Amino acid sequence: MLLKHKLEKVKSFIDSDNVLTKLEERYCYATDASNNINKTRIPDLVVFVESIEDVQKIVKYANTHEIPIIPRGAGTNMVGACLCPQGGIVLNFSKMNKILEISTKNMLARVQPGAVLGDVKITAEKLGLFFPPDPSNYKVSTIGGAIAQSSGGAQSFKYGTIKDYILSLKVITANGDLMTLGAETMKDASGYHLNQLIIGSEGTLAVVVEAVLKLIPKPEAKQLVLAYFDNIENATEAVDKILINNISPAAIDFMDRNSIKTVEDYAQCGLDSSKTCLIIVELDGTFESVRTQAEKIKNIFQEFNSSNIQIPDEIQAEKIWQARRSSFAAASRLAPDVISDDIIVPRKNIAKIIRGCSNICKKYNLQLCLVGHIGDGNIHPQIVLNLENEIEFKNYQSAKSEIYRLTQDLNGTISAEHGVGIEKMIYLENTIDKNALEYMKLIKKAFDPKNILNPGKIFKL
Amino acid sequence: MLLKHKLEKVKSFIDSDNVLTKLEERYCYATDASNNINKTRIPDLVVFVESIEDVQKIVKYANTHEIPIIPRGAGTNMVGACLCPQGGIVLNFSKMNKILEISTKNMLARVQPGAVLGDVKITAEKLGLFFPPDPSNYKVSTIGGAIAQSSGGAQSFKYGTIKDYILSLKVITANGDLMTLGAETMKDASGYHLNQLIIGSEGTLAVVVEAVLKLIPKPEAKQLVLAYFDNIENATEAVDKILINNISPAAIDFMDRNSIKTVEDYAQCGLDSSKTCLIIVELDGTFESVRTQAEKIKNIFQEFNSSNIQIPDEIQAEKIWQARRSSFAAASRLAPDVISDDIIVPRKNIAKIIRGCSNICKKYNLQLCLVGHIGDGNIHPQIVLNLENEIEFKNYQSAKSEIYRLTQDLNGTISAEHGVGIEKMIYLENTIDKNALEYMKLIKKAFDPKNILNPGKIFKL
Repeated sequence: MLLKHKLEKVKSFIDSDNVLTKLEERYCYATDASNNINKTRIPDLVVFVESIEDVQKIVKYANTHEIPIIPRGAGTNMVGACLCPQGGIVLNFSKMNKILEISTKNMLARVQPGAVLGDVKITAEKLGLFFPPDPSNYKVSTIGGAIAQSSGGAQSFKYGTIKDYILSLKVITANGDLMTLGAETMKDASGYHLNQLIIGSEGTLAVVVEAVLKLIPKPEAKQLVLAYFDNIENATEAVDKILINNISPAAIDFMDRNSIKTVEDYAQCGLDSSKTCLIIVELDGTFESVRTQAEKIKNIFQEFNSSNIQIPDEIQAEKIWQARRSSFAAASRLAPDVISDDIIVPRKNIAKIIRGCSNICKKYNLQLCLVGHIGDGNIHPQIVLNLENEIEFKNYQSAKSEIYRLTQDLNGTISAEHGVGIEKMIYLENTIDKNALEYMKLIKKAFDPKNILNPGKIFKL
Repeated sequence: MLLKHKLEKVKSFIDSDNVLTKLEERYCYATDASNNINKTRIPDLVVFVESIEDVQKIVKYANTHEIPIIPRGAGTNMVGACLCPQGGIVLNFSKMNKILEISTKNMLARVQPGAVLGDVKITAEKLGLFFPPDPSNYKVSTIGGAIAQSSGGAQSFKYGTIKDYILSLKVITANGDLMTLGAETMKDASGYHLNQLIIGSEGTLAVVVEAVLKLIPKPEAKQLVLAYFDNIENATEAVDKILINNISPAAIDFMDRNSIKTVEDYAQCGLDSSKTCLIIVELDGTFESVRTQAEKIKNIFQEFNSSNIQIPDEIQAEKIWQARRSSFAAASRLAPDVISDDIIVPRKNIAKIIRGCSNICKKYNLQLCLVGHIGDGNIHPQIVLNLENEIEFKNYQSAKSEIYRLTQDLNGTISAEHGVGIEKMIYLENTIDKNALEYMKLIKKAFDPKNILNPGKIFKL
């Protein structure tokens, strides 16, 4: 049977309204939020799944006929995890977007993979609960995508990443079996943590069809503290001092001069782009505790020669976060392309990696806007360029390699919260332990012997 | 070559002072803190490992000659994870007990697997940092054991379990290779989370030889609130109300009448054993926040007909925690044996599981002391009996099965923080998803094809 006929047959077991076959319909599924020029193919089929059974039928069929399956949420990932290097069937989860249950008594939410992460956050907050993961794109990105890419966000400093909020997953295995992993309980030591193995596996081990998320009590109050510094070392030393003074902020974020300027031009929220960098600290807790801690932080900032320290009100604070989160959008006005990277080092090396990235980009004549979660040691260098300009593209590739080498030299890793996808695949091979990579491949082969689940991602088999 | 000769040869590559061969020396390694009568054998050899290379040499040798390897920390686990059903070589990690590095700037600790968990806690606290996992036996149990069994503790409510504090692991694979998993960074999305797979695998996938632990800022203040209730429902509803009032306690613990009485007889710390149950809430945060929240909790407790509400000072609070943690020791004075179980249900079913356990034990004439972390839905029924009394033993087995069935009916799981070991192996098969169990076995076979790593634990191959 030719591929075309095999694909046509999907309509015999899936509502044909949910099956996109025309080229012009499939076209936009050849890309995601990454910049994978030359690595893309248009998928052979796009299916809007509506139920667990839909997913099960398609995966089983794809496995029998050895057709690649590419699960897709909102397609907002930055590493090409939703691309189709070998063609295949895109499983579009946008119709499986429901919050099926949210329980204050059990403090958990049961959601479909296409549920928008921000919707889960808002729904939980209305009930006095809190779902901490907050990737910058949370207003559009999905829970399934966050699970696939092991997403974090600014509040990871205090609250960890999505992997700390997954209690149980329902997944479809490569052979089409439904499997429930973990338990709907706050702790679980009943066998291997297979759900933790699925998180961050980018759809290469199984297809997530339902997730039970842990919710926590919502803090009573929040408070931002902003401060500008003339050099990075002062900023990072001030942060060190905060943390050994019994203060655990929800988030500790960073913007360099270029990103402050770019964001301010875009969002006009009153940021001062004359300074080297901006530190944004978010406190949460009780009304009293955030007030006292904000004062303490102010004193620490002053000690480290900070200027223009601000303790904004709630409305102004939300504006600042929105501006910070818009840094990618803001940077994308500067040139045809922006590539937002994601690297992480042990915290004591944060000033070194920031300076290093800056020097590397200077060396290659590349414009850099740098933001990051410096409490975690995690930065997002945003390189602004025109990928169609051959020299710039070549320079970018050299700069990228050097940035990753520096990350490794500083004992860091090349993905903190974006995943590996296609974009970082060749670099992963050179940065993680060789034996660990072999065991990852053993697991992949055990779970997906025909290599149909999102093939060509994370590592080459 | 006979087994005896093979074992004798270990002395050719390990300092012979570190190799126990005599029966009387090996004898005590036939047991751990579980009550596995009839399931035990005396190990053929006990080796005190002193370095990663020691472990590597022994595992490689054992794999070649197909000799079981049983890693052992303090042997405090309750499920028989350190027993030797097939004999073999016990790897005793008590000499690999060092805290190799503790960094305030990076907020991490690098430790050997034999490091005592409580020592890590104390060392971190001296530096203004906090390592939250707190199993009741933390003053003697080891980091390696906590990783193997996926340990939690009272503070899991707010802070999660050991799995949330492992950044990177060095492990020895079955074939003797050294492998580094994860990264020494606060987040990591570079490939599959193999370190999370090792946590809770009870030494069946690889032998942990070093761990990098995440530390967090130490809260400024703590405050206990104690209250007694005449019925369980009032207690659990009061807890529900606390949690939707923007309060996130570090711990929410529970003791039933029997355990209050038993502990009070043992530790004389002023507990009131005339009441049905005791709730212990631990708050942490700033001095102001714990004071305000303690008052709020007091009001909520009053609303739910609590009596004798106490807000103890620091010294009294430490006494109460010590008493609570001694519940197992206290119960063991009542009869020759105590079996401390570990089950967990979604929080809304906590009153049902407590009543259910109590009824089941009554039906089988078994004495029950019940403690637990009810904020998590996790209880530890401690059954006090004489295992050599055949009727009691039979009754215990029936009660245990019924308790697990009820746990399952209430959507819970049979191990929250103790692991599976030998003790819960047959029950695991009936409680977790059949497909999930098959994939666990696939992973085990991929990691340890000769089944030498702690064989006969978690599941039968």
